[in-house]
Amino acid sequence: MEFRLIDRIRERTVLARGDVRLGIGDDAALLVPPAGQELAVAIDTLVEGVHFPHGTPPRDIGWKGLAVNLSDLAAMGATPAWALLALTLPRANAACVDGLADGFAQLAQEHAVALVGGDTTRGPFCLSIVVHGFVPPGQALTRAGARAGDAVFVTGTLGGAAGGLRLVQGRLPFDPADEAHRALRARLDRPTPRVRAGLALRGHASACIDVSDGLLADLGHLCAASGVGAQIDPNALPVPSALRGVFGSAAARELALSGGDDYELCFTVPPADVGAMQAALAAVDGKATRIGTIVEGQGVRALGNEPLAAARGGWDHFGL
Amino acid sequence: MEFRLIDRIRERTVLARGDVRLGIGDDAALLVPPAGQELAVAIDTLVEGVHFPHGTPPRDIGWKGLAVNLSDLAAMGATPAWALLALTLPRANAACVDGLADGFAQLAQEHAVALVGGDTTRGPFCLSIVVHGFVPPGQALTRAGARAGDAVFVTGTLGGAAGGLRLVQGRLPFDPADEAHRALRARLDRPTPRVRAGLALRGHASACIDVSDGLLADLGHLCAASGVGAQIDPNALPVPSALRGVFGSAAARELALSGGDDYELCFTVPPADVGAMQAALAAVDGKATRIGTIVEGQGVRALGNEPLAAARGGWDHFGL
Repeated sequence: MEFRLIDRIRERTVLARGDVRLGIGDDAALLVPPAGQELAVAIDTLVEGVHFPHGTPPRDIGWKGLAVNLSDLAAMGATPAWALLALTLPRANAACVDGLADGFAQLAQEHAVALVGGDTTRGPFCLSIVVHGFVPPGQALTRAGARAGDAVFVTGTLGGAAGGLRLVQGRLPFDPADEAHRALRARLDRPTPRVRAGLALRGHASACIDVSDGLLADLGHLCAASGVGAQIDPNALPVPSALRGVFGSAAARELALSGGDDYELCFTVPPADVGAMQAALAAVDGKATRIGTIVEGQGVRALGNEPLAAARGGWDHFGL
Repeated sequence: MEFRLIDRIRERTVLARGDVRLGIGDDAALLVPPAGQELAVAIDTLVEGVHFPHGTPPRDIGWKGLAVNLSDLAAMGATPAWALLALTLPRANAACVDGLADGFAQLAQEHAVALVGGDTTRGPFCLSIVVHGFVPPGQALTRAGARAGDAVFVTGTLGGAAGGLRLVQGRLPFDPADEAHRALRARLDRPTPRVRAGLALRGHASACIDVSDGLLADLGHLCAASGVGAQIDPNALPVPSALRGVFGSAAARELALSGGDDYELCFTVPPADVGAMQAALAAVDGKATRIGTIVEGQGVRALGNEPLAAARGGWDHFGL
């Protein structure tokens, strides 16, 4: 039943790759993995009202759906290649589908990602996207390699997306004429997956994760997977000037610690490799800020050694 | 945020495969595709109330979610290998998650499918599943190879799932004490993906599709992709005896023509290959019934050459 909607999406997302034997339109896509590479595969779902506010422009949703998945590949140091999209909509809405496909295609083109498969169904508005990337054997960045003494870095800035969410939720009303407001909103709606930075970190980072749930939560996951703790300096966190301008320094730091949806990379580097890592990042116009150090033990603490309570930042997802 | 739910699922779906370098728990799975094979990838979403009735046991939903995806691989003649699951639930419900994982695992084990990634989010009850399979280059069964004169076959029986749906929807109330009712309900809730039949058809079938939307619709897709038409004999359709018993012969034939969700394979075979195909199918305990012939032109017609109207069968998905 999905044929016509998916055809619409296909037309707007055409991107030729030699390794796609058969794309959208049959029972499955047929792909040719490159010889001698590992395949990195990730899936993420975005639900209206949970991962993006009601009324978000479809183009932004399409962009963000792909961005959060490419961010997972970036965190592995993988080169993106193929994506599949499962789209659920309450009713066939051509304008929404077109916008979504256009936003998706815009980011896909930047990273030479081909949409090779899809499914459209009727139901509450949500989308699941799957991405595939390549990485040479043994070179993937996992969460598990951090050792005591490693330096902790983060790319870009933190807290901006959470600030944008606050504006959207109207705690402080969003003012489209305000440049700082627009900058924060863009951090929420149009995150930039750090794909090139992730590739540059191969061979340098000992562990890596993308910041989707908030720095404290995600660095906590990295530490748990590596069997270590971390000590961070809350004053060292890179915060967008727009965030500080709109919310003040204290709130900005809090959002940088706990706010989600920034899709920056948080990674660890052995002290001897820091210089080489910075050079590799600079070569791809990447930038990272040192925010702390890996220590023995467990958990994420501030420099003075107090534990940092993770205030609820981004969206209210759930655990069990 | 998905960590604890997904851990629960992981524990219940453990299956070791040597080609899984890194499974659930990092930003992406790391997989090792077999050298010299093509990768077949499919995605399908199931939404509560659209693809399964409210109140369907979670075990059946987990089974069916994987089954409909494996059916796509079967239709390509691919050997299943890896799956990812994106699960959206209104609230963290351990019993539901456990049941779902158990139903998924039961079918996954049968086909040596490893669950390598997942995402759990809060939202309306739905799940997207992605499956990966392998197929030797050039040997995949597509929809596009049927030629005039080819025989049209279908595996198993048709219409049973649509009959089960009628019972669930209460047009004729479901009676759990009635063996025929239970048989039809099982066709709806626990479809059998024809994986082994799909593999046996490689080198014999000229085109293949799985029957998810109903025979007329899906054979129509196959004909459109191949640029041909088909003539079928409605009286030759294999119908479950339970279906005929409960609904009568005329309604049974109608459901077999138009009802969805049977997940049988509909395929075409050049006349000279029919014997070899039947032997290959028999070797895997498969069975197929000849239901018609591919002809020049387009569309699916009955033997007497009247066009067959596709009555609305299964679920009300949408096109645009």
